[in-house]
Amino acid sequence: MSEVYAARRTRLRECCNAGGSAAALISRPANVRYLAGAAPRGAVLLLGKTEDLLVCSDPTADRPGQERPDEALRVQTLPGAGGGDPAVAAADLAAGQGADSLAVEEHHLTVARHRALGSVAPRLRLANLGSAVEQLRVVKDEEEISCLRIGAEIADQALGELLESILVGRTERHLALELERRLVDHGADGPAFPTSVATGPNAGRPGHRPTDRRLEEGDFLSVCLGATYRGYRCEIGRTFVIGTAPADWQIELYDLVFAAQRAGRESLVPGAACRDVDRAARQVLDSAGYTEGLTVLTGHGVGLEIDEDPQLSPAAMGKLDACVPVTVEPGVHLPGRGGVRIDDTLVVRPEADGGPELLTITTKELLAL
Amino acid sequence: MSEVYAARRTRLRECCNAGGSAAALISRPANVRYLAGAAPRGAVLLLGKTEDLLVCSDPTADRPGQERPDEALRVQTLPGAGGGDPAVAAADLAAGQGADSLAVEEHHLTVARHRALGSVAPRLRLANLGSAVEQLRVVKDEEEISCLRIGAEIADQALGELLESILVGRTERHLALELERRLVDHGADGPAFPTSVATGPNAGRPGHRPTDRRLEEGDFLSVCLGATYRGYRCEIGRTFVIGTAPADWQIELYDLVFAAQRAGRESLVPGAACRDVDRAARQVLDSAGYTEGLTVLTGHGVGLEIDEDPQLSPAAMGKLDACVPVTVEPGVHLPGRGGVRIDDTLVVRPEADGGPELLTITTKELLAL
Repeated sequence: MSEVYAARRTRLRECCNAGGSAAALISRPANVRYLAGAAPRGAVLLLGKTEDLLVCSDPTADRPGQERPDEALRVQTLPGAGGGDPAVAAADLAAGQGADSLAVEEHHLTVARHRALGSVAPRLRLANLGSAVEQLRVVKDEEEISCLRIGAEIADQALGELLESILVGRTERHLALELERRLVDHGADGPAFPTSVATGPNAGRPGHRPTDRRLEEGDFLSVCLGATYRGYRCEIGRTFVIGTAPADWQIELYDLVFAAQRAGRESLVPGAACRDVDRAARQVLDSAGYTEGLTVLTGHGVGLEIDEDPQLSPAAMGKLDACVPVTVEPGVHLPGRGGVRIDDTLVVRPEADGGPELLTITTKELLAL
Repeated sequence: MSEVYAARRTRLRECCNAGGSAAALISRPANVRYLAGAAPRGAVLLLGKTEDLLVCSDPTADRPGQERPDEALRVQTLPGAGGGDPAVAAADLAAGQGADSLAVEEHHLTVARHRALGSVAPRLRLANLGSAVEQLRVVKDEEEISCLRIGAEIADQALGELLESILVGRTERHLALELERRLVDHGADGPAFPTSVATGPNAGRPGHRPTDRRLEEGDFLSVCLGATYRGYRCEIGRTFVIGTAPADWQIELYDLVFAAQRAGRESLVPGAACRDVDRAARQVLDSAGYTEGLTVLTGHGVGLEIDEDPQLSPAAMGKLDACVPVTVEPGVHLPGRGGVRIDDTLVVRPEADGGPELLTITTKELLAL
C-alpha cells in the first residue's frame, strides 16, 4: 500500500509545483487520510521541500482499528503532550526546510489558524492549494472501489435482516439503532452517516432524523443507511409499504420515483455531464408536477467522505469519469402524507465493461412488509 | 424560553458594541444553537444593526426533535433550494441594514468563506468576534444544568443496566453499541460522543475506540459514555474488574486514580484557578511516579459541546465560577497491561450550597463483575 500513498503524494506535488509552491500543508482530515494512510485526530501532512511529514499533536489520540500511517512517512509528534497546533508546527518545519511558499487548504483552515501560520513563519508566503486533493480523490482505484463494494454488501445485509423482523409498533429511533448495530455486526467500522429511518408522514424526507414515531399499518417506511469500511463510505436508501397492500397513491408515487432513479442510473456513462445526469432524474419528477421541495442534489460522489465531488445538481460543472462512485437518490416528499426516496451507490464504468456497476443490490421492487 | 435567547443576544450585542461593531455573524453551530434556540444544518445567526435573523440555506435540512428556533427571531431561508452560503447572504444583509462593521468568528470561518464575505460586501469591515459566545456559554443557567442532570441520569441508567448483564466474551464494539442503544431507550437524543469501551490492555486509554477484542476474566474494563439531552452533553467514565477478585496491582492502581479524581473533585470551588484543580488531581499521579502518558487535560467544561471551556490543564488560565459544569477525569494507562480512568460530570457550587454537585452518581467503588 505504501506505493499507493507515495504515488498520490507525487501527483499532488506536481500540482503544487505547477502552482509555484515547493511545499503544501494538508489539514482536511479526509485529505490527510488519502495521502498518508491514516489521519490521527488533529494531524496534518506536510508535503515538504525535502521531506514529507505527518505532524500529530496528541500522542494519546487514537486511530480507528485499520488505519496505520504509510510506513514511508515520518511521523512527528509534537512535544509537550499535545500543546500546540500541528498546522503551526508544520509551517515552522516547512520554513526550516527552506521553502519560501506553502500551499494551504483555505477552504479548511480557519482565519485564526491561517493567521497563526503566518505568525510562526513570517517569511513563508501562504498560497492556496484549493481543492487539489479533493480533485485527486474523485476517481477511485480498484482497491478503493473494493472497500466501497464491501461496505455496500454490509449495508445490504443489515437492511435485509431488518426487513425479516417485525416492524409495526417500533420507533424510528429503535429501527435506526438496530440497523447501525447490524452494520457493525457485519464488519463495518461504523455507520457512514447517521442512519435515517422515516415513517408515515416523515417518509421520503431527505436527511430525516429518527423520532419516537412508531411504524403503523399503511405507512410508507423510508430508510437510508451506509457502512464505513476501511474508511470508505457508501449509501443505500429504500422505501417500503407497511401492510398487505399499498394504496394507489403509494404505488403511483413509488413508480414515479423509481422511474426517476432509473433514468439517473442509466445516464451514468463516462463523459456524461453531471448536470445531465441530474436532469435525467429530475425531469421525470418535474414533468409529473413535483417541482417544489426537491432536493438540491439528486446524487453525489462517495469515498472517504459521504458527500464528495462530483455533485449531481442543475448547477454542477464537469463530466463523469470512469471509476467514479456516485449515489443516485431522487425522492419526493408530500407534506403531511409522506413520500419515497430510492438511493443507490454505483460506480461509473464504460459500456464496454457492462455500464454502471451497482454496489447496493437490495431489490427496488415496492415491498409490502 | 424566548426571553432567555433574547437576553443572551442582548449580552452578546453589548460585547460586540463595546468592540466597535454594530453587527455580528455567528457561524459556529453550538453558538448559533445557544443564541437562536436551534441550529439547522449550515444556518448562521446575524445579530444585525436593525434586526436579528437566522439565515438557513437548505429548507429541507432537518433539526433534532426538540429544537425550534426562538419564535422572536425571523428565519430567512435562502431562495433556490440551498444554493448559497448563509454566511455570505448574512454579510450581504448586514451591509443592507447599514452596518459598516461585522464581527465574525475567525476561529470558525475558513479563509475561503471569510474571503467570500469580503467579496459580497466590500464596504463592510470584518472584525473578529473571537470566542465571545463561547465565553458567555461557560456559566450555565439552571435550565441548562437541568438538561445536563437529566443526561447524567440517563447515562447512569444505561451503565447500570449494562453491569447487570453478562459481560465476559462480548466485544468492546458490542458493549459500546449496547450502551448507546440504552441511552436512546432512556430518552437521550443520542450519545454525547462516541462511546468508549476498553478492555484488558486497552483499559484506561483515553478516547479508546472500541475494537473486536472480547472481555476476559481478570481484565480491567473501562467505559466512558455520555447522553445528549436537549442538546446538552454530559460524560461519565468508570473502570471495573472482571472476575471474582482484582489482582493487587489492579487494586493499587485503582486506589491511586480514585485518590487523584477525588482530589480534583474536592478542589472544585468558585474562584479556584483551573490549573490548581488540574494540579490537585495530577500531583497524586505524579508523586506515585506516573508522569509519562498522562493526558493534556484532567477535565473540561461540558454543555452544548462535549469539550468546552474551561480546560483543566497545567497551562490553563482563569478561575472557576459557580454554575460551571466540568468533568474531572484523571487516568493512568500502562502500555500492555491496561489502566484506570474515572470520570464524573460535576457542577461548581459554593460551599454554602453544599459544594460541587455530582451529576453522575454511579458508584466509584472498584466493582468486580
